[in-house]
Amino acid sequence: MEKLSIVKIGGNIIEDEASLTGFLKLFSNLKGHKILVHGGGKRATHIASKLGIASKMVNGRRITDAETLEVITMVYGGLVNKNVVAKLQALNTNAIGLTGADINSITSEKRPVKEVDFGFVGDVKQVAHNAIDKLIKADFTPVFCAITHDGNGQLLNTNADTITSQVAVGMSNLYETSIYYCFELNGVLKDINDKNSVIKHIDTSLYKELLEQGIIADGMLPKLENCFDALNNGVKSINMGNTSMLTQENDNFTTITL
Amino acid sequence: MEKLSIVKIGGNIIEDEASLTGFLKLFSNLKGHKILVHGGGKRATHIASKLGIASKMVNGRRITDAETLEVITMVYGGLVNKNVVAKLQALNTNAIGLTGADINSITSEKRPVKEVDFGFVGDVKQVAHNAIDKLIKADFTPVFCAITHDGNGQLLNTNADTITSQVAVGMSNLYETSIYYCFELNGVLKDINDKNSVIKHIDTSLYKELLEQGIIADGMLPKLENCFDALNNGVKSINMGNTSMLTQENDNFTTITL
Repeated sequence: MEKLSIVKIGGNIIEDEASLTGFLKLFSNLKGHKILVHGGGKRATHIASKLGIASKMVNGRRITDAETLEVITMVYGGLVNKNVVAKLQALNTNAIGLTGADINSITSEKRPVKEVDFGFVGDVKQVAHNAIDKLIKADFTPVFCAITHDGNGQLLNTNADTITSQVAVGMSNLYETSIYYCFELNGVLKDINDKNSVIKHIDTSLYKELLEQGIIADGMLPKLENCFDALNNGVKSINMGNTSMLTQENDNFTTITL
Repeated sequence: MEKLSIVKIGGNIIEDEASLTGFLKLFSNLKGHKILVHGGGKRATHIASKLGIASKMVNGRRITDAETLEVITMVYGGLVNKNVVAKLQALNTNAIGLTGADINSITSEKRPVKEVDFGFVGDVKQVAHNAIDKLIKADFTPVFCAITHDGNGQLLNTNADTITSQVAVGMSNLYETSIYYCFELNGVLKDINDKNSVIKHIDTSLYKELLEQGIIADGMLPKLENCFDALNNGVKSINMGNTSMLTQENDNFTTITL
């Protein structure tokens, strides 16, 4: 099986021109087949507020009403995605920007209304790995933004981490897949106050130990749960750290395997 | 040679939900290989004004400054393009939304500053017909918005009619191409005051006659000049009329050939 890297960057890299340019160079230099997934974050909030649309949050989570979905479609699918694609082309990476609607690549289901109505938010139902593979086989590099569709004409806002893991799971039917989650930390930390206390390798048994010791907590809990879910569904390895983990020189990041 | 239809719709169809839905059904039913090109028009002006960006016009032409380019990228590349793609998917057309930056499909050159500085406006330099053909061969239907790139990371605003004719010329290397320009009239009219005075067929000699008689004037002049330019560069036929020309039943539109 050939290898495929799925790299995710968050809003903090997107926001900052110098960070984005630096990252895109590393991504372009990454050997082999690859897919990029990006969030959009604050840019959408900023433009929404300029348009007089208030960000609605419930329990720290954004509610995507019709107006907010329009802004997300403009910012994630247009402004951010197309600028990333243009910058990658300048670095000789033959990028193609996608939402889940394009080539019907990611179908999702509008989240059912329970205590909270999240609005136009989609939970991933299906990844069209064969369609995505046609792009890869044509030597194009897919660049996904955090938008999916329901197959009936409705775009839906979907978490970029989830898109990353679901696309990786889907592509595991055809490739040996590795995920690279780029974030602000150097990796999963043993001591949250010591940024150099990176745990270099986590497997299932260490994961259980760390959970019991309470070392994995707060925001890291759902992230790692998501990781082991992906690993249990065919993803070979998951890497977490800052963008320099994409270089060969830096081995100070966390690799997670079963 | 296989046939390929390149269909262009303008802002007036995009603006109106019912017109757009009706058109997309016709487009979906169109047999054979096809490409859609769309403008964006008033939606961009509307959102720009909401964001406090004034539309700058010189001699009736929009000046694309950096802020305006951002809005165009959001509206054409995001909001309009991705909603069209999602709607086409619901009609079982496996659409893929593109700017000229995606798969490096349309490279352009920033228009040189002469009497007027048009800003971030690009004149088409090259169409990557082989790259676009990889999508067609994969059974995807390209949907282009009116944005190109310079290959150095800069997106550029480009007239949708020009994108249509240039893509058609490029694809003529591989296909027998026909353009369908959908607009508000039934076709090229003999008498501008009689909407049913459609000239059904224009060839080179009739074109010269019509020019001499002053029947082709104003806005139609550059449109037809553009058409004959495309025909002289490999496009087989060009059709102008309202969207119903895409059906078999209606033959009341203008077909232009050499």
